[in-house]
Amino acid sequence: MSKNNDEIFKNVISHAKEYGFVFPSSEIYDGLSAVYDYGQLGAELKNNIKAYWWKSMVQLNENIVGIDSAIFMHPKIWKASGHVDGFNDPMIDNKDSKKRYRADQLLEDKIARYEKDGKQDKANQLQEEMDKALNDDNLARLKDLIIEHEIACPVSGTRNWTDVRQFNLMFSTQMGAMAEGSDEVYLRPETAQGIFVNFLNVQKSGRMKIPFGIAQIGKAFRNEVIARQFIMRMREFEQMELQFFVKPGTEMEWYKKWKETRLKWHLALGTNPAKYRFHDHTKLAHYANAAVDIEFEFPFGFKEVEGIHSRTDFDLKQHQEFSGKKLQFFDPEINQSYVPYVVETSIGVDRFFLATLINAYEEQDLSTEDKKDSRTVLHLHPVLAPYKAAVLPLTKKDGLPEKAREIMNRLKLDYNVTYDEKDSIGKRYRRQDAIGTPFCITVDHQSLEDNTVTIRHRDSMEQERISIADLDRIIGELVSWKNVLAGLQE
Amino acid sequence: MSKNNDEIFKNVISHAKEYGFVFPSSEIYDGLSAVYDYGQLGAELKNNIKAYWWKSMVQLNENIVGIDSAIFMHPKIWKASGHVDGFNDPMIDNKDSKKRYRADQLLEDKIARYEKDGKQDKANQLQEEMDKALNDDNLARLKDLIIEHEIACPVSGTRNWTDVRQFNLMFSTQMGAMAEGSDEVYLRPETAQGIFVNFLNVQKSGRMKIPFGIAQIGKAFRNEVIARQFIMRMREFEQMELQFFVKPGTEMEWYKKWKETRLKWHLALGTNPAKYRFHDHTKLAHYANAAVDIEFEFPFGFKEVEGIHSRTDFDLKQHQEFSGKKLQFFDPEINQSYVPYVVETSIGVDRFFLATLINAYEEQDLSTEDKKDSRTVLHLHPVLAPYKAAVLPLTKKDGLPEKAREIMNRLKLDYNVTYDEKDSIGKRYRRQDAIGTPFCITVDHQSLEDNTVTIRHRDSMEQERISIADLDRIIGELVSWKNVLAGLQE
Repeated sequence: MSKNNDEIFKNVISHAKEYGFVFPSSEIYDGLSAVYDYGQLGAELKNNIKAYWWKSMVQLNENIVGIDSAIFMHPKIWKASGHVDGFNDPMIDNKDSKKRYRADQLLEDKIARYEKDGKQDKANQLQEEMDKALNDDNLARLKDLIIEHEIACPVSGTRNWTDVRQFNLMFSTQMGAMAEGSDEVYLRPETAQGIFVNFLNVQKSGRMKIPFGIAQIGKAFRNEVIARQFIMRMREFEQMELQFFVKPGTEMEWYKKWKETRLKWHLALGTNPAKYRFHDHTKLAHYANAAVDIEFEFPFGFKEVEGIHSRTDFDLKQHQEFSGKKLQFFDPEINQSYVPYVVETSIGVDRFFLATLINAYEEQDLSTEDKKDSRTVLHLHPVLAPYKAAVLPLTKKDGLPEKAREIMNRLKLDYNVTYDEKDSIGKRYRRQDAIGTPFCITVDHQSLEDNTVTIRHRDSMEQERISIADLDRIIGELVSWKNVLAGLQE
Repeated sequence: MSKNNDEIFKNVISHAKEYGFVFPSSEIYDGLSAVYDYGQLGAELKNNIKAYWWKSMVQLNENIVGIDSAIFMHPKIWKASGHVDGFNDPMIDNKDSKKRYRADQLLEDKIARYEKDGKQDKANQLQEEMDKALNDDNLARLKDLIIEHEIACPVSGTRNWTDVRQFNLMFSTQMGAMAEGSDEVYLRPETAQGIFVNFLNVQKSGRMKIPFGIAQIGKAFRNEVIARQFIMRMREFEQMELQFFVKPGTEMEWYKKWKETRLKWHLALGTNPAKYRFHDHTKLAHYANAAVDIEFEFPFGFKEVEGIHSRTDFDLKQHQEFSGKKLQFFDPEINQSYVPYVVETSIGVDRFFLATLINAYEEQDLSTEDKKDSRTVLHLHPVLAPYKAAVLPLTKKDGLPEKAREIMNRLKLDYNVTYDEKDSIGKRYRRQDAIGTPFCITVDHQSLEDNTVTIRHRDSMEQERISIADLDRIIGELVSWKNVLAGLQE
């Protein structure tokens, strides 16, 4: 079945909806743009992804702890971090249609059109000029480029443009109910700052010694103008971030270490290494002295799923200045205090969820010479699978359901198991394949006689018969976190 | 050590900060009112609380699934739910100080003062009149009561009041960047509506049959005017909610069942039953036909930690009307479609966290005739404790740290363990007591000879010597989720 990437991506999206992984948010109200809800299987998969990150980052590492800071933070924090002044997109309005666009996006579309029309020189030149204007924050030049290249509004068709202005991506709201005016606060656009402002509290109360890390999983919000590609770029999303505090001068060594460690984390789930690549940043953010993306090959190309950034002492120094509190570490080895340097690893839960789903998804041809056949299967790693096992009585009678439920109730105390007695056993296997359940335990008439069941393996579709007495141990070992965590331990 | 409740509560709050459970948010910027951050141990405790709820509600129950819907929802949803029009507090401004107050809170304070002054009759009468005015939504009467009882502004000291007005508790923000005006969206004030609007998607994609439940854990936001008592009432908080869908007419039976089930859940952690009580609502919300609070005895009295509400078909019917989509279940047993009734269980993660901390906290007198001694200990249930065990080499030399680390690295693959080699062993035991670690594993010189260690039990402070070969199994059994889950299985 050779389908093109667009088709595959569409099928993954509809599969995600059909089986309760991801629903468009507020769907009965015709949806809310760029916001999605995780359904009953999506919530389990997402929880397992978060558990994988937390276990491998926090539980395995003696010198890393995790926190959970609030979404609401003091507004001055975003002044210090640079987000109030610098977290912008360049926007332009068409005066006739009253529609607003990202200026760089209009230019990108034009470049794509030049390329399609075979005008590679023009495309290259515009790309270069746009990059320069963006680098220089030269908004007037961006507008000139739009005029020069005769870009028209897709809605009105006219070239009647306003100037290009900066539009801040932070959501804001009013807190408090004082008559003399409430305070404007922001929904955090990243979780990292919640770690920086808690640096001292964690270091002191946890008696942490450099090098050490503070990890966090939590929601962040960005008022993206162009939010698209399913859950790839959402206005409400979730991050898993580590800020690792090191002695100044050692940051490149740690940066290299985290680059390796994080790629290893992705590959430990059994993903084909060819699906991943590093992309070094050539243009660095104002706070960074090195940065790299870990990219995954989505159906729409290689895209960032995780970033590793050497953030220097920028953030802590800014907070020192804006808060007036010293954010230093006294290093007993050199008998001296300093502001630590920071290496950050930042991964989007939702993006990684999408990468996981796409990577797991297969429309498998099972045809033989005699018969056409196929199945859709999610090859999820057992630690990530929403259900670790399905318990299936072969038929609905003869005491098989009772026996099956007995088994299920015992397994359930350890992990998530599902039960299904509807339809033929073949159909039920297919349904479990489609939701990624790695093992099907079938209770048949022989089970009543000799206390055995069959285990069917999702990927190979092979079955083996085992004793019920061994079932807990066998499945327990097959789905254990140890299988991935042990490989990550150093 | 007999301290009064105020003192105990203050000590719990400072203990929570000192050991990294809860920090005031944005503390280096002098804090953000009614917002808190969970530190390195608080995040673990909170995660364990959420895991307890999820495992017992979703994993154990074949007919309950969990979802994770977004904080941002279509604004019409809050119109349908009644929050846009009815989720208000009655506010009054003092014209001289420009300060704003909750009108009912001013009256409550006055009632408390009457009681303190021995004027019980006056207190009772005002209470009754205030309740009536609140019931009738009679804002003018609330103002009259403030005037009649000569209540003055605590800041200006004057009685120069505005009228009482309604103030909506939802936070709002602007989404999108269209030139013609963005859309106002709200931060959800409860997670429940995210379940109702996904009712059909979950029921269909999960092939659920009534009765069934949808569970969710997530953040909610309320712009409380009076937010106080530490993490008891915050502007940003987390809920764990179950909406259980039943056949109309069976709701009271399910309401009773959930009332029992939920109390059992609280008590399964070993809390003294005298700390809990039910409080039936006499005044019911517009959507409910029965409601009860599960109250916990905080140092400041019995207060709600969980609510169980029979919500009827109010929410689903409202969403049917406002969305124009049928939200019904076809019941094959009676061959008929209906809008299901709903029984809700709703518990605040932060409140339960506080109840857990307070319940676990003890300043224990260990004095003997010869010697004064004491310790502060958190008697947390092992499944909730941030660290399940601490591995402690008796001394820093002779190869004991290496042996200890070897043990720790193995245990770490299964759960969160900590390591400590600083200070005397007695001090280290006390430190682990203070953070609730149930077991200390000490590696001493004998360990090198016969491969045994001592296990010290936090609560009894008793020690036993066991073989390292048995350690994994023994600790594994002591901290297993099975210990609580098995008791909840039916």
